[in-house]
Amino acid sequence: MKLNDLLTPALILDKARLARNTMAMTKHARGLGVDLRPHLKTAKSSEVAKLALSGNAGGITVATMREAEYFFDNGISDITYAACIVPAKLDRVAALNARGADVKLITDNADVAAAIAGHGGAFKVLIEIDCGEHRTGILPDGAALLEIAVILDAAPAVELAGVLTHAGHSYSCRGKEAIEAVAEEERAAVVEAAERLRAAGHPCATVSTGSTPCVMVARDLTGVTEVRPGVYMFGDMFHAGLGTRRVDEIAVSVLASVIAHREDDNQLYIDAGGLALSKDRATGAFDDDSGGEHGDCGYGLVCDAETCAPIPGLYVAAVHQEHGMVTVAEKEAPLPFSRLPVGAKVRVLPNHVCMTSAAYDEYNVIDGDEDSAEVITTWGRCNGW
Amino acid sequence: MKLNDLLTPALILDKARLARNTMAMTKHARGLGVDLRPHLKTAKSSEVAKLALSGNAGGITVATMREAEYFFDNGISDITYAACIVPAKLDRVAALNARGADVKLITDNADVAAAIAGHGGAFKVLIEIDCGEHRTGILPDGAALLEIAVILDAAPAVELAGVLTHAGHSYSCRGKEAIEAVAEEERAAVVEAAERLRAAGHPCATVSTGSTPCVMVARDLTGVTEVRPGVYMFGDMFHAGLGTRRVDEIAVSVLASVIAHREDDNQLYIDAGGLALSKDRATGAFDDDSGGEHGDCGYGLVCDAETCAPIPGLYVAAVHQEHGMVTVAEKEAPLPFSRLPVGAKVRVLPNHVCMTSAAYDEYNVIDGDEDSAEVITTWGRCNGW
Repeated sequence: MKLNDLLTPALILDKARLARNTMAMTKHARGLGVDLRPHLKTAKSSEVAKLALSGNAGGITVATMREAEYFFDNGISDITYAACIVPAKLDRVAALNARGADVKLITDNADVAAAIAGHGGAFKVLIEIDCGEHRTGILPDGAALLEIAVILDAAPAVELAGVLTHAGHSYSCRGKEAIEAVAEEERAAVVEAAERLRAAGHPCATVSTGSTPCVMVARDLTGVTEVRPGVYMFGDMFHAGLGTRRVDEIAVSVLASVIAHREDDNQLYIDAGGLALSKDRATGAFDDDSGGEHGDCGYGLVCDAETCAPIPGLYVAAVHQEHGMVTVAEKEAPLPFSRLPVGAKVRVLPNHVCMTSAAYDEYNVIDGDEDSAEVITTWGRCNGW
Repeated sequence: MKLNDLLTPALILDKARLARNTMAMTKHARGLGVDLRPHLKTAKSSEVAKLALSGNAGGITVATMREAEYFFDNGISDITYAACIVPAKLDRVAALNARGADVKLITDNADVAAAIAGHGGAFKVLIEIDCGEHRTGILPDGAALLEIAVILDAAPAVELAGVLTHAGHSYSCRGKEAIEAVAEEERAAVVEAAERLRAAGHPCATVSTGSTPCVMVARDLTGVTEVRPGVYMFGDMFHAGLGTRRVDEIAVSVLASVIAHREDDNQLYIDAGGLALSKDRATGAFDDDSGGEHGDCGYGLVCDAETCAPIPGLYVAAVHQEHGMVTVAEKEAPLPFSRLPVGAKVRVLPNHVCMTSAAYDEYNVIDGDEDSAEVITTWGRCNGW
């Protein structure tokens, strides 16, 4: 089937771009001497996981228990569930482990550590470290680290598997040097925590860092054993603004149809609105034009349907549930209404690919030359919890 | 099952509140002398449709073809597909009609009207009117109205079914009087279009208005034959801010667990983030405190899990993919950490219920006294396209 024959809106995955992105990261991690444990919260697809795992150790990261169960059902057993566990979810984890999975949990809380220790199940647990994002996690030099370690290490059925951190504040950086500084902050924090644990006599086999921007710019990860980037597989307009993905490397887009013209307001409407694109406004952080070529692109950058090359200046400026309003950055320039009659198709590159992809059950996978792309198959996703 | 036994995040639907909302609108429409054609783009559920249709004529409104097919498969045949049709979707509409559905289409474009006329299928078509929102639709006093009517009316297989409008700009109103003015603007525009069509010898059986705020305040709908509100069934914090739903009337919420404390920053984290709540920031329009009691509530208002009563001042101030950061409106007031230990549950009332609900496959339906609510069943949703 030709791309143009799909009904809209539809999620498109460019397999060639994806494969280039995953191979490059695999090579990069190998060069850094760390395991790549790809985060599948973005892709939520076992077929994407196969590409991401090619040439790697085989472990993955997930953000939901549904992802853990889905990937285990698709042949992956080494799974780090990288969102703070709560006691009520332990039975579900234990049930998956009983089927043969090897799920690693994370916590930053002594009461939860005690609940894990008291549950009776055999769990592997990483302690979450705050390396500067100030979200979840404990400070590498604080008292809580050893307090939690003692609780976990004392429980016969529990294995203290190591430490883990996520430098989400790398997304606030502008420019490669700023990201490099956060990457070093992330490395230093988690390595400090690991060394404190070992000095106190605790095991700490895994020292894990995350966040695509940090991993992409990292040059030295001494002391780190694994990295957990996820968005690198696909990329999005926020990463284009950060400079960590080129626009022509972005592997996921939304195919949409022009549904109305509004020439008096120099606007046209497409059938991809807030549900089809998400309401994520990440590139709004680039309204000072610090975002490079494309800066703030509203709810997505509008591209040619066949080649996925940006149509100069066009972006989705506003969304309703099923309507996206397209206009042009330079207000005086008229929209190319004759090139884009009602019924014509475009592709929209998303602001934040994790959010946009979650609206769809499946990817329409394209391959081949960009000016004659064929839809070769569909790949499912495991949304929800 | 008790509400508290659900794994989180989970979408909760309070059946008693829903039933009160749907009954009140049914009575209100009857009082206005118009048919209620509920818009199911919010609920996307055949079980909710049954309640919304009780006591009404039986027709519904949808925003996607998947909704049209789903509701037809669940016994509803009178369906208005209220998003501008494009020629490539006509085969799918014709296929549904061939199975017995009675799908009404809308358009605001002469080229599309010509494509409908030339398709060969038997279609019913409404012309979309712009009553002041300036989204899709044509002006009631413009030349395009009669141009499109002539094309449709001349096609033997096509029935010009009437005119339809949507006063989405009612959502920009503050205060009941402002909404009443838009409601009258909406009525006057679509009735003017209908009268022009009839004066030119065209049929115009249906004169249809939309938008929950307008319908809720409307006192006179002379000339209108049907209304198409949708959000009224559930309500959300944006409607609470508008004054068109009370907080204790909101029927949909997200059950979430506290996953981390961050006492140094007076924050706690829940396992409902950007995917579980959506990134809709509709209540940000109330940051001037024009929104009444709750105004801007970030990504959602935090409530007691059992009673769904707001916990004073608590709201979701920031979201990551699977993390929601809760803090308190008066920064000096400490969060109730001891009332909400890690593992405790809360309910979050959404900003924009259409967006939040779309992240879930199903509703967990509760009924009974609010302090001992039982999960009585689950109801599925038809997301996607």
